[in-house]
Amino acid sequence: MKAAYYEGRETIRVGECAPVQPAAGQVQIRVSHCGICGTDLHIFHGKMDHRVRVPQVFGHEMSGTLVAAGEGVESFAPGDRVTVRPLDPCGSCPACKAGHSHICQKLKFIGIDVPGAMQGLWTVPAHTLHRLPPSLSFEQAALIEPVAVACHDVRLGEVKAGDYAVVQGGGPIGMLVALVARQQGARVVVTEVNPFRIQLAGELGLEVVDPRETDVVKLVDEQTGGAGADVAFEVSGSQAGAELMTKLPRTRGRLVIVAIFGEQPKVDLFRFFWRELRLCGARVYEPQDFDRAIALADSGTLPLERLITNVYPLEGLETGLRQMERGGSVMKVLVKCSEA
Amino acid sequence: MKAAYYEGRETIRVGECAPVQPAAGQVQIRVSHCGICGTDLHIFHGKMDHRVRVPQVFGHEMSGTLVAAGEGVESFAPGDRVTVRPLDPCGSCPACKAGHSHICQKLKFIGIDVPGAMQGLWTVPAHTLHRLPPSLSFEQAALIEPVAVACHDVRLGEVKAGDYAVVQGGGPIGMLVALVARQQGARVVVTEVNPFRIQLAGELGLEVVDPRETDVVKLVDEQTGGAGADVAFEVSGSQAGAELMTKLPRTRGRLVIVAIFGEQPKVDLFRFFWRELRLCGARVYEPQDFDRAIALADSGTLPLERLITNVYPLEGLETGLRQMERGGSVMKVLVKCSEA
Repeated sequence: MKAAYYEGRETIRVGECAPVQPAAGQVQIRVSHCGICGTDLHIFHGKMDHRVRVPQVFGHEMSGTLVAAGEGVESFAPGDRVTVRPLDPCGSCPACKAGHSHICQKLKFIGIDVPGAMQGLWTVPAHTLHRLPPSLSFEQAALIEPVAVACHDVRLGEVKAGDYAVVQGGGPIGMLVALVARQQGARVVVTEVNPFRIQLAGELGLEVVDPRETDVVKLVDEQTGGAGADVAFEVSGSQAGAELMTKLPRTRGRLVIVAIFGEQPKVDLFRFFWRELRLCGARVYEPQDFDRAIALADSGTLPLERLITNVYPLEGLETGLRQMERGGSVMKVLVKCSEA
Repeated sequence: MKAAYYEGRETIRVGECAPVQPAAGQVQIRVSHCGICGTDLHIFHGKMDHRVRVPQVFGHEMSGTLVAAGEGVESFAPGDRVTVRPLDPCGSCPACKAGHSHICQKLKFIGIDVPGAMQGLWTVPAHTLHRLPPSLSFEQAALIEPVAVACHDVRLGEVKAGDYAVVQGGGPIGMLVALVARQQGARVVVTEVNPFRIQLAGELGLEVVDPRETDVVKLVDEQTGGAGADVAFEVSGSQAGAELMTKLPRTRGRLVIVAIFGEQPKVDLFRFFWRELRLCGARVYEPQDFDRAIALADSGTLPLERLITNVYPLEGLETGLRQMERGGSVMKVLVKCSEA
């Protein structure tokens, strides 16, 4: 078994995996596939060295098979096909006590703050497990985590059948938000600038526009009889996105901040007042979002395989990271971590 | 009967009132008192000339006695003591159809877009009327409109008993938001920089701090066991306020934008993501907010008389406007429009 170790800025070394015996309440998983997240690229670029110990194994979008269970683990057994909800909350901070343990004030994100899934054998708390249905391939199941992000976003955005939704940004998360919102019965328009992503969104039957070429406000206005969108998801993380978003919703319409803004953009707070807009941030997921993501994936209604651009062996992790770094014709890149 | 006419930037002329006979569905009111709103000062400064025809009578925070009712007005009769909810929605735009007629996309605000209350006799649609209880003086009743703003803000902020609330800005609206939130059972901290307002807030039993002298984030953190505030109201309209607000709420805590932001401030959208904060804008009021404001005022639990700094005759309107322009030791200024 092998592992891919992050050893400092832009340095990955693939070496022997150091399996950790599962303690009480833990399980050991033979990892099949692990997707590369934007956060992983961020780690690779050395931008999360304040959180990551070196050498560290990262990765948190995975699928695999349980191989060993520690003491007290009763709901899962060796042979179970699983995915991991990679959150380890403290259980005692004000957020946990308020029932928001997914955004625990001392949250350990598994795969960032503690070792992740880019290895053959991975040991995690059993409370993070979700069972995979037999129909779901390990490749598709490695997308459950980002699908759960999208389910969380769509749930917090209170999307319902008949809603008109705009998704700003058609990367992996934006695309999944659009697909999940459509599954919820919404009419969805995606804004994106990358030609590859625009074409892919179109092939997936999504209405997609380049906001540099199309007057999105005018389009939404026309398509909603002058009302505005019921909900808009800001997934671009750009100043342009922050500017556009407040112009889209109807009176009391909703905005969901999905993107991780590195800088503080200027925001039209007057528009919030004027139209009584509502905004919420949405981060990671709660257990029901994983349940919903698995059910959706199992239903076959999400074109998950179309979102997978490449599958590399563990030795190809750096190739995948470089591919994502260049951007262009790439959506989701998976790494095969073992022959699970 | 007299009226105060706005005749262009910084020009007020007091002359004979031009009474308008109430048409069908309208009523004529002998105006007793009318408060000066920040918006009126804005009009006086010529900053709303795109909306105000000249000469125009402004003013919309009023109390008075019905003197004549037009055809079809059945619920009100001459002699009724009333206040006016100064909104005239179109009834047919998408906002009106969605049940948000108070923020109608073609809203006529009575006292800005059409003549207001700074006159002895004022004619308005009967659908704007709310009856005043006998206990309420005309002076206090002239504050019902801003109290209704506060009731709307507190309602949209979902304030409930036991909540910890921060109100950023202790002017007339901020002070009323704080008082209404306290009445709702919340613990309230007001941030304010004006010494007169700080002292008044203290005298009214509100906890008040100067954010230039007190580390508000630390204070809130200490007072909430590290959780953060349940809700914060941004009533300052300043960049400093926009910066502070996102640092205050707990996970999934709420922000209410009450202030009218003239410029777009930088906003920490990352914090919305990180803590899953929620924000909503709150503008004017709905009928139930007027009902609640009248009930609260009638209960005697709001120290409304303490918020009235001066009462001038109509000829003193400009004096009142200049007083508000200077700021300092001023809260609410009323104008006596007739001997109603």
